[in-house]
Amino acid sequence: MSQAKAYAARSATSPLAPFTFERRALRDNDVNIDILYCGVCHSDIHVAESDWGPSEYPVVPGHEIIGRVTEIGSRVSKYKVGDLVGVGCMVDSCQTCPSCQQNLEQYCDAGMKGTYGARDMIDGSLNHGGYSDHIIVREEFVLSIPEALDISKAAPLLCAGITTYSPLRHNGVKAGDKVGIIGMGGLGHMGVKFAKALGAEVTIFTRSESKISEAKQQGADHVIVSTDDAQMQAAASSFDYLLDTIPVQHDLNPYLNVLKVDGTHILVGLIEPIEPAVHAANLILKRRVLTGSLIGGIAETQEVLDFCAEHNIECDAEMIKIQDINEAYQRMKKGDVKYRFIIDMKSLKEDA
Amino acid sequence: MSQAKAYAARSATSPLAPFTFERRALRDNDVNIDILYCGVCHSDIHVAESDWGPSEYPVVPGHEIIGRVTEIGSRVSKYKVGDLVGVGCMVDSCQTCPSCQQNLEQYCDAGMKGTYGARDMIDGSLNHGGYSDHIIVREEFVLSIPEALDISKAAPLLCAGITTYSPLRHNGVKAGDKVGIIGMGGLGHMGVKFAKALGAEVTIFTRSESKISEAKQQGADHVIVSTDDAQMQAAASSFDYLLDTIPVQHDLNPYLNVLKVDGTHILVGLIEPIEPAVHAANLILKRRVLTGSLIGGIAETQEVLDFCAEHNIECDAEMIKIQDINEAYQRMKKGDVKYRFIIDMKSLKEDA
Repeated sequence: MSQAKAYAARSATSPLAPFTFERRALRDNDVNIDILYCGVCHSDIHVAESDWGPSEYPVVPGHEIIGRVTEIGSRVSKYKVGDLVGVGCMVDSCQTCPSCQQNLEQYCDAGMKGTYGARDMIDGSLNHGGYSDHIIVREEFVLSIPEALDISKAAPLLCAGITTYSPLRHNGVKAGDKVGIIGMGGLGHMGVKFAKALGAEVTIFTRSESKISEAKQQGADHVIVSTDDAQMQAAASSFDYLLDTIPVQHDLNPYLNVLKVDGTHILVGLIEPIEPAVHAANLILKRRVLTGSLIGGIAETQEVLDFCAEHNIECDAEMIKIQDINEAYQRMKKGDVKYRFIIDMKSLKEDA
Repeated sequence: MSQAKAYAARSATSPLAPFTFERRALRDNDVNIDILYCGVCHSDIHVAESDWGPSEYPVVPGHEIIGRVTEIGSRVSKYKVGDLVGVGCMVDSCQTCPSCQQNLEQYCDAGMKGTYGARDMIDGSLNHGGYSDHIIVREEFVLSIPEALDISKAAPLLCAGITTYSPLRHNGVKAGDKVGIIGMGGLGHMGVKFAKALGAEVTIFTRSESKISEAKQQGADHVIVSTDDAQMQAAASSFDYLLDTIPVQHDLNPYLNVLKVDGTHILVGLIEPIEPAVHAANLILKRRVLTGSLIGGIAETQEVLDFCAEHNIECDAEMIKIQDINEAYQRMKKGDVKYRFIIDMKSLKEDA
């Protein structure tokens, strides 16, 4: 056992505050990681505040973790002390079901085990995430961080990055495709970078005319103001793919209408009933596809890290101290972040 | 011009009744067809009764047409007098848009022209369908009827057949796949035959325990009573495809739940808002796909006719006289048909 310093939510309504707990003793396939940076994901807020049903407290959020290996179990073969590594949204899965066998651990039949909030498959203890000084994870769920990446900006690739990269790859986005990105936050701005790197012609859909220049700065070739019916109608039947990062209910019908025959609308942000209702005619009359995607498997998460190193892609992020986490949550709720907060975890040492 | 005898609806509330009108003069790419049989599709009722918005009257329904060529235009090359031919749901499209170029005339950018209810692209006259003694159609939209088919049962292949065959083929259903067919009417019973012929393991979903033996008679390997939560739960995450032929609003969520990771739910019957709402988690958490499909292109309609000849597939149908069409509509509204009515068009000659 090793004592960990962390920040935790003790209830759905209490702010995050310093918290000390015991990490498990190192197992023979475990890697002990000194955490350097941890990205702040909207999911962190949702779980800390029990938005998705009652969470088990204390909640130590954080699933965009960059750190350095300090210790390895006796059977660990992929990593050695000193390696720069990452941990994303999952720390375990059954490893035997059809999904796990296909490197799709996120869709594990037994349920993938989240980096925080889930319970350990062996000892049943509550998992605690990356808002802490170290973490112990079985090596199969540890990623290697390529040297070419700026480690101070790499953390969000482990959730925001893979969440947008995976569906673009899985659905076969290629050079020349017309791709629309709906929403321009943490997920959306990464989606733009990936779609551009894959050679697509990229359009950002934004609700507000005031965000056009920001959308162009994100690298979009075109911007469509989604609240302007004339612009939406002019775009009818012209897109191959839509990557929809909006995390709240919205009308999909005007977006489906801009997809070509066989075009695909991919949901990655919405975990709600789809309301207003999708009109079935919007699918049937053009053979359109509505689908969704959840993060990505471990192999593909390694792929996105390597892809970012190769294509010089990084997340646009604002560095904060752990002591500022509650203010960061408030700013995120207002959409006041461009486009991700990353916690510099050495700040944890400043607490007495 | 040639005078045609037919049955037509004069308004949304009037029963079908004898009607005489002029077919256009034969163009150089037209085929004149003496109609032998015409299938009765639910769409016929919807258009006759203005269920999908106000129809233009008179409506002469019928888009499952089998007949014999009696005359050809000067440039017709594919057909000769005496050939057995078919006409399905479309009689024209732009022929130049990307969809038409890909043999997907049903998704024509300019809008495919329906066999009835639409207006002719050249002279603007109102198209009249197959509840008539003859029809004149440009040869590109005429199908060849293989000799091996029983022509008295082939008519429904031109709509019910292609509507279920096309999405199974397009989505790549293959031997060993687990396919669920939702609904067991005109479309559903054809879906079972096609899925079986493609080598799939086929399950019929029915709302009523009383229909289990009927479902087995249709050729299903298994039957699941969809109103039995235990049966639906036991089937969770086990299907590759669902072909959903239900034409009225229904809750898709329990069906989505039986799809595997990457499984596909295909709507072919529903032209309504999808309510109750689909929960986005049912898509995202297993990367499932919700899509739709509309009939099929001309080349694929020829393919399904040839496929049926090769695999000895025919529609289960009840032959009626045109004089019984209003009663047939009433029976269809009650679901009292196994599984399609076909009008023997020689009955038209019995009217004075």
